[in-house]
Amino acid sequence: MSESKDKMTRAAIKLLRRSGLSGAGINQVIAESGAPKGSLYYYFPRGKSDLVEAALQSFGAAVRENFASVVSRNGSAQAKLQRLFESAAGRLQENRFSEGCAVAAVVLDLDEESTGFARTCREIFHGWQQAIAAGLTELDAKDRDRFAQFVIAALEGALILSRAERSTEPLMNVGRMLGQFAAMKLRKPARK
Amino acid sequence: MSESKDKMTRAAIKLLRRSGLSGAGINQVIAESGAPKGSLYYYFPRGKSDLVEAALQSFGAAVRENFASVVSRNGSAQAKLQRLFESAAGRLQENRFSEGCAVAAVVLDLDEESTGFARTCREIFHGWQQAIAAGLTELDAKDRDRFAQFVIAALEGALILSRAERSTEPLMNVGRMLGQFAAMKLRKPARK
Repeated sequence: MSESKDKMTRAAIKLLRRSGLSGAGINQVIAESGAPKGSLYYYFPRGKSDLVEAALQSFGAAVRENFASVVSRNGSAQAKLQRLFESAAGRLQENRFSEGCAVAAVVLDLDEESTGFARTCREIFHGWQQAIAAGLTELDAKDRDRFAQFVIAALEGALILSRAERSTEPLMNVGRMLGQFAAMKLRKPARK
Repeated sequence: MSESKDKMTRAAIKLLRRSGLSGAGINQVIAESGAPKGSLYYYFPRGKSDLVEAALQSFGAAVRENFASVVSRNGSAQAKLQRLFESAAGRLQENRFSEGCAVAAVVLDLDEESTGFARTCREIFHGWQQAIAAGLTELDAKDRDRFAQFVIAALEGALILSRAERSTEPLMNVGRMLGQFAAMKLRKPARK
């Protein structure tokens, strides 16, 4: 039975990444997952809202782990940032530009009935920011959080441009630019 | 009658900015605009797809004009970029963090049935990129397009973070960072 739960959560993540909240309806999740419909309300008593919440948490944790792993490997801040964007570009190409960020998709679909997800999205973004900041050990400690927020903003935006272009070029360009910026900050302290 | 067309287009823009494609259904647009339902298919024969197309074009043109106006005023590249983000932050605060970018919202909602909008979104992003590149006269001509793409990515991402936070802080931080980067690029040519 727990296998059904996993299947439904994974299907919900995929559907959120493809087309946001509206794409991740109960019937679509059931169809995509192949899990029995009866089990949905057993695992997710409040239906779609529980399912989306579980999907966001699971997606958020997986991405956070990926970020932490990419930025904790050896290398300069510049190399780490370029790797982060190359890794995102590789994944986007694998799914043929059809799956973006589940959290961004939910934020842009929020309406009066779904504002409850805003808090979850915010907390996931904070977790990603911490994971990236922790890896930017070369930067001044006081700059790391702000820089990490900039990285996440640039990554989210570049994912949108790359999906619209159906090309990894925006992600690769933005990754190079950010890497260049990090390298410049290290060569010469910001005047601010 | 043309007044109805404008009203419906404006309503569709607002709904797209709030919650993407799923929020901008025919009935919601009619309700939001107060225009007579009968006139919708008169002006938009293919219904929602014509209406969304018109809304994207109109939104894209207005934003492009705004970008061009902000970056054509006097000032350093750094000042122009910070103004761009301050202006976005001001608008987001005015609508109480409920209205983001209509184009980004549509890109993240694309599914099999709506891929036709991808081309429109791509062309709008290109137009914005050109408008910003044209204002970054201080930068090397060969860098302007790539930098402008970076600006749009950072702006789109920061809008998402600011909506999730219900705070202008991400937009303001990212605007400052980008401005700092532009200033650094001018002080010292990139090695690469």
